[in-house]
Amino acid sequence: MELIQIGELAREAKSIMSTLDTERKNNVLLLAADHLVKDTKKLLAANEKDMENARANNMPQGLLDRLLLTEERIEQMAEGIRQVAALDDPIGEVISEKKRPNGLVIGQKRVPLGVVGMIYEARPNVTADAFALCFKTGNVVILKGGSDALYSNMAIVESLRGALKESGILPGAISLIEDTSREITAKFMKMNDYIDVLIPRGGAGLIRAVVENATVPVIETGTGNCHIYVDESADFDMAIDIIFNAKTQRIGVCNACESLVIHKNIVQKFMPLLTKRLKEKNVEIRGDERAVSSAPGIVPAAEEDWGMEYLDYIISVKTVSDIEEAISHINKYNTGHSEAIVTSSYENAEKFLNEVDAAAVYVNASTRFTDGFEFGFGAEIGISTQKLHARGPMGLLALTSTKYIIRGNGQIRP
Amino acid sequence: MELIQIGELAREAKSIMSTLDTERKNNVLLLAADHLVKDTKKLLAANEKDMENARANNMPQGLLDRLLLTEERIEQMAEGIRQVAALDDPIGEVISEKKRPNGLVIGQKRVPLGVVGMIYEARPNVTADAFALCFKTGNVVILKGGSDALYSNMAIVESLRGALKESGILPGAISLIEDTSREITAKFMKMNDYIDVLIPRGGAGLIRAVVENATVPVIETGTGNCHIYVDESADFDMAIDIIFNAKTQRIGVCNACESLVIHKNIVQKFMPLLTKRLKEKNVEIRGDERAVSSAPGIVPAAEEDWGMEYLDYIISVKTVSDIEEAISHINKYNTGHSEAIVTSSYENAEKFLNEVDAAAVYVNASTRFTDGFEFGFGAEIGISTQKLHARGPMGLLALTSTKYIIRGNGQIRP
Repeated sequence: MELIQIGELAREAKSIMSTLDTERKNNVLLLAADHLVKDTKKLLAANEKDMENARANNMPQGLLDRLLLTEERIEQMAEGIRQVAALDDPIGEVISEKKRPNGLVIGQKRVPLGVVGMIYEARPNVTADAFALCFKTGNVVILKGGSDALYSNMAIVESLRGALKESGILPGAISLIEDTSREITAKFMKMNDYIDVLIPRGGAGLIRAVVENATVPVIETGTGNCHIYVDESADFDMAIDIIFNAKTQRIGVCNACESLVIHKNIVQKFMPLLTKRLKEKNVEIRGDERAVSSAPGIVPAAEEDWGMEYLDYIISVKTVSDIEEAISHINKYNTGHSEAIVTSSYENAEKFLNEVDAAAVYVNASTRFTDGFEFGFGAEIGISTQKLHARGPMGLLALTSTKYIIRGNGQIRP
Repeated sequence: MELIQIGELAREAKSIMSTLDTERKNNVLLLAADHLVKDTKKLLAANEKDMENARANNMPQGLLDRLLLTEERIEQMAEGIRQVAALDDPIGEVISEKKRPNGLVIGQKRVPLGVVGMIYEARPNVTADAFALCFKTGNVVILKGGSDALYSNMAIVESLRGALKESGILPGAISLIEDTSREITAKFMKMNDYIDVLIPRGGAGLIRAVVENATVPVIETGTGNCHIYVDESADFDMAIDIIFNAKTQRIGVCNACESLVIHKNIVQKFMPLLTKRLKEKNVEIRGDERAVSSAPGIVPAAEEDWGMEYLDYIISVKTVSDIEEAISHINKYNTGHSEAIVTSSYENAEKFLNEVDAAAVYVNASTRFTDGFEFGFGAEIGISTQKLHARGPMGLLALTSTKYIIRGNGQIRP
């Protein structure tokens, strides 16, 4: 289908979506979950086509695993939709209302964004997640998934549309762009007349391409060069546990730790203990001169290392003379995601919290907690690393806007 | 000065700006107001250069008037800054704080956006306003004013920087790009490493150019094709007063009414009364067939008229069969600014409020009220017509972001 047709279907659905009440939306979501489970065989067959193509194209094992659907994973997708149905509906809430001296009553009400465009890579479960979060907030969603997952995504969308049809909801509430060419993606990013916001989810390259080429407003998500600063006063055991967790618990995620900053006065004592622990997972350590001389097996870091998001068993180590240098190093190289300090100094903890410029700043905890579920939002559409609209993990509220509603009785401006 | 140097100065100032306390910021603002008044002669001399150039270039009278500075207008600029000093400081407020089951305490705190880029046209007072609003919220501002107001803007910025210097604040807190060429403006819009948000203020052409070319996140402001729908049940006197006010009280502003939508059952009775009133200001009326036949002196509208922001003594009239048609016409042609219904029907009022998609939706009041002062925000940096981040009049809150601050005692993710 042509992009413009998809846009028109979305626009048609949008005006109705914003008027659906919560109970209706929840019932549709529960039905959509049932449809996915009911369509398990079709979904597995479609996914097998994607898997065959991927294997033929020598996709690495890690990505193959992300692409794979199983009966259990389909049940998890359905369960994810049911969980979204159970969340509070933010739409329609009046955030503020006040009466002005001239008698006008000005209320501010939460409304859907309208049409959300998602551009993402190979995980098919994002298709169902994005639909659930957008539908719950009265938004229409247009999905542009990766070519690797095309058959899986088509099957998921068809299944979800089955539930929409059974519920009397226009199919345009969810659309998938099946032409995954660059040309069509470039056009999609400029459909300002049809799309209210674009959310890219994926690697740094994808996100950069969207930020650079889109004219539709974008919520930038994801890339995380997350630092942990080990202060002079840090508890070594705590620091090592936190670093080990943040680096190795899951390496391919944006809230994993990529860079360490260590106070020079402790580096000689601390690094031998840390290297020993990181060796358990064969983590490669790249350090500056002081770091290299502090323990065996640390290789010299190049300037590029300070800005790298490895997403691998690699970590960089920069040593600093004081907390000011640590903060300024972090503010220079970070990507605005998650940064942590390990310290027992109240003053340094507060200074770090106040002066480090990132979506989430931690004292004495792992950066791995930056995520909608861990923050208690119940669900997540992504993690914003920009400052406009939403910052940090984005739950349902990030998919809403507001509208001023003004009730008068004939007021004119003098 | 080179753009990159301006960017570096801004970055240097940014890290300090976010740590200034409210009292310090207010004192600087009060001093800045005094400096403007003290520098009145310099400001008038610089403005006279701009005025001479403008007259030589045959600038129309209306624009000349917007460019002109007088002793009184400089006093008003200073007073505007003092009023911003008197407003509550939103920065540092903890919006929410909760303890998670694992003991992490997650707080969300209001912080500055960072560096705000303003691209605007000829009114020099915007220079002082933008500085005051950004400074109050701990933001650095980089200004790109119009070439017509260059000397005035340079003098204003120099005066404000005098106050910064006297207060020990880095000059990079406010910068003016003196090279107003298109090439430099195009580069400015892509300085993602230095600028957190761009706010364009000006005509539709300027705003479109920024939305299309910027890679820095933009808050779209301003263009307003505002409609008033006169329902079958409207009180005619009220409708005529509201239309007269919204159309003619000030024609060059974005919240002026440009388009009328009228229920077909009342058009024959209503239009003769309305045309009579609008004649007082020689307003040209362009209508569809039913409108043209309803009263003398109405000229036929072309399709383009439905989408026009005239900013002139012209108004279009579309007749409709029912409120559904009115809403769908408005949702098709509006620019997401301000829309009003005049009605005595509770049901139609609620329907209009719920279904019209715009930043501000009115029942029985003039669209001219969409403005930060009228909404009680005390000040305004612009009126957002997009749905991300801020929608409608933007006061100080629209110049803030948030940051998650997480306090732990060694938590790692299981």
